[in-house]
Amino acid sequence: MRMLRAEQFGLKREVEYGTPEQNEAVRQIVEAVRNEGDTAVLAYTEEHDRVKLAAGSLRVTEGEIQAAYDHVDEAFLVAIREAAANVRAFHEKQVRQSWMDLQPDGSMLGQILRPLKRVGVYVPGGKAAYPSSVLMNVIPAQVAGVPEIVMVTPPATGGKAGIDPYILVAAAEAGVKEMYRVGGAQAVAALAYGTASIPPVDKICGPGNIYVALAKRAVFGVVDIDSIAGPSEIVVLADEQADAAYVAADLLSQAEHDEMASAILVTTSEEFGNRVAIEVEKQLADLPKAAIARKSIDSNGAVLLAESLDEAIAVINRMAPEHLEVMVEDPMSILGRIENAGAIFIGPYSSEPVGDYFAGPNHILPTNGTARFSSPVNVDDFVKKSSLIYYSKEALLANGDKIMTLARHEGLEAHARAIELRLQREGRE
Amino acid sequence: MRMLRAEQFGLKREVEYGTPEQNEAVRQIVEAVRNEGDTAVLAYTEEHDRVKLAAGSLRVTEGEIQAAYDHVDEAFLVAIREAAANVRAFHEKQVRQSWMDLQPDGSMLGQILRPLKRVGVYVPGGKAAYPSSVLMNVIPAQVAGVPEIVMVTPPATGGKAGIDPYILVAAAEAGVKEMYRVGGAQAVAALAYGTASIPPVDKICGPGNIYVALAKRAVFGVVDIDSIAGPSEIVVLADEQADAAYVAADLLSQAEHDEMASAILVTTSEEFGNRVAIEVEKQLADLPKAAIARKSIDSNGAVLLAESLDEAIAVINRMAPEHLEVMVEDPMSILGRIENAGAIFIGPYSSEPVGDYFAGPNHILPTNGTARFSSPVNVDDFVKKSSLIYYSKEALLANGDKIMTLARHEGLEAHARAIELRLQREGRE
Repeated sequence: MRMLRAEQFGLKREVEYGTPEQNEAVRQIVEAVRNEGDTAVLAYTEEHDRVKLAAGSLRVTEGEIQAAYDHVDEAFLVAIREAAANVRAFHEKQVRQSWMDLQPDGSMLGQILRPLKRVGVYVPGGKAAYPSSVLMNVIPAQVAGVPEIVMVTPPATGGKAGIDPYILVAAAEAGVKEMYRVGGAQAVAALAYGTASIPPVDKICGPGNIYVALAKRAVFGVVDIDSIAGPSEIVVLADEQADAAYVAADLLSQAEHDEMASAILVTTSEEFGNRVAIEVEKQLADLPKAAIARKSIDSNGAVLLAESLDEAIAVINRMAPEHLEVMVEDPMSILGRIENAGAIFIGPYSSEPVGDYFAGPNHILPTNGTARFSSPVNVDDFVKKSSLIYYSKEALLANGDKIMTLARHEGLEAHARAIELRLQREGRE
Repeated sequence: MRMLRAEQFGLKREVEYGTPEQNEAVRQIVEAVRNEGDTAVLAYTEEHDRVKLAAGSLRVTEGEIQAAYDHVDEAFLVAIREAAANVRAFHEKQVRQSWMDLQPDGSMLGQILRPLKRVGVYVPGGKAAYPSSVLMNVIPAQVAGVPEIVMVTPPATGGKAGIDPYILVAAAEAGVKEMYRVGGAQAVAALAYGTASIPPVDKICGPGNIYVALAKRAVFGVVDIDSIAGPSEIVVLADEQADAAYVAADLLSQAEHDEMASAILVTTSEEFGNRVAIEVEKQLADLPKAAIARKSIDSNGAVLLAESLDEAIAVINRMAPEHLEVMVEDPMSILGRIENAGAIFIGPYSSEPVGDYFAGPNHILPTNGTARFSSPVNVDDFVKKSSLIYYSKEALLANGDKIMTLARHEGLEAHARAIELRLQREGRE
């Protein structure tokens, strides 16, 4: 791993909007699905997934879901059920209530919170089909009270119309009752505009390839979308009392995801940095994904040497990492100074996979420095608010003049007259 | 006003992305400001606002703000101060706390809530410069605890570098200390990337013209943005016991905003619909903005006749209006059935301008049907969350096997080994 002075570390923060050709391809798919519905969905599925589906066969059947359970091993089922229960418990603590404020003049103001009605969760196919991500997208929506949660996922590779049984089981365990075998930009367009088979949704979430990401961007406004995830990142802040082998293992668990992933140690100890770098080499050698992890470590990995803990914290706040592990002495004492991070893992036993799979907090986190302004997926993402305004006659009579002053200043005379008319009529009584 | 059967009413729901030429113009401005900073900002200000500013004069001075107070009349000042206090009080009720959950095995999970650090508020110039909107954008950020709130607004028309004193006073009253005379796409780019004069922000909010909207879209991901507002809309649900003159006045207060604005009455009574249509004609005649209101009413206004209150509510939920006034008998009894609306105004005294200017709830609301999935501007928009995961040794030893099962199922061996290493070492002790 390269070792750099912390102040030399530059941030690249580029937003990926796709090539003009990719955007045009997506635009055509979205328009075709919007205008032709299922016909276009089936045609693109045949073209891109090389699966010819009959009309009416997009929906996954109850029988398929049952059959999926027969394929799944018991240890997986036990683990995913307990993980789902933990995720549910953590997200249930986020649920908020509508509220109202009754005022002495008889007025009432409030905020009404309601779940979205229908949410679509995109689950990628192939190697990126992660049952854990199904839980992380579905359960917050379910806890929010969303009554209709739909999963879409491309038909499995190899010309078959089937779907990975582990994905089906994870979705069923999370409580999804409605699943469709459709992927790519055509799936996003179908969810946004609806087809004869697939009723439209209010929000689309879940990761996908560049075409899925561009399609989500294209339909944003017609429906809500989640954020578009970048490559995964970990920063470990550790000092010489930390276990270099643990730090190295956690860095590698990020690096194995993707050649673009980044794994960075920030430390004030050059000696400790060296120990971690040696451990990384040692552990990397026999990983099944050694080639990917090697590329990630060489391209995006680094040991950053800070002059002081203050400098270390400052560089972390600039990076705003997706995952931050804190393995310094007395880690809780610095928590208040961490301004930007998606998830913060404290101490030697809070290895990132604990959060990725099991503990309960969401593993879908803001990437690419967006932890400065955005949040892990959470229940609020599936709740909308309405303001409630009940103004009493007394309140209107007391405040009408001020409302008219402000309206007339802005040149909005009809606004002022809507108040004036009431003051004239009601004041008269 | 045209009268339609409710079931005949079609929704147009198009998202505006600008022409290719507009997008290209914005791309060039954003790139130039990103690369050349203040030089480009000053050049575009001269080109678009026809104001030649000296380098270093972008920031509004303390003296200008003081001078603005001398221009503003007392009634305005009294009204805006009381409005600001109401907006602050309503938004303070939305503030939430970080929380943690301590578990019997010694683990701790939590959600840390923090304000964004720096927010930029765009305020349009000219006729669209609304002091009330300054309050509605700034105060929620301030209540959230955002320490740095910056306002940008174009130099006033007529070749002067000054800014509308009412805007300056509204911003000062809301608590803004940092203001810049810059508008258009160049202002958005400066806020996103920073220049020598204008440090970058984490989020940009506030309305603007199509160039501002496209610039916000272009920098989204580098910073957060608020939603892109469409034309304003009101739906009034009223029955024959309502006051037709009040309903007409409220419809017109929406129609005067913009020819694209829409004002719709939904009623079960054709006779009442006719009375409202006649009142609209009567009140429209001598409005200062009669021409705009006429165009809006003719193009986008309607009386929708529903067969039943159920049908009326169903059509409203499909429309998901920005503003909904409910003036039926026993209006509270239907509140639970309104699924989608930005703000709900109950009863005869809750005229929309009450909420636009004074009551306290935000007047920046989801337009264009987006109330299905989005919310009025609120404190949460300026708060980000981080997950906190502190796992105890006991918890890791108890659950490590399940975490490894899930990681290995997903083919992520380095994830599993990060756990396994700890189980081996810590289990041994």
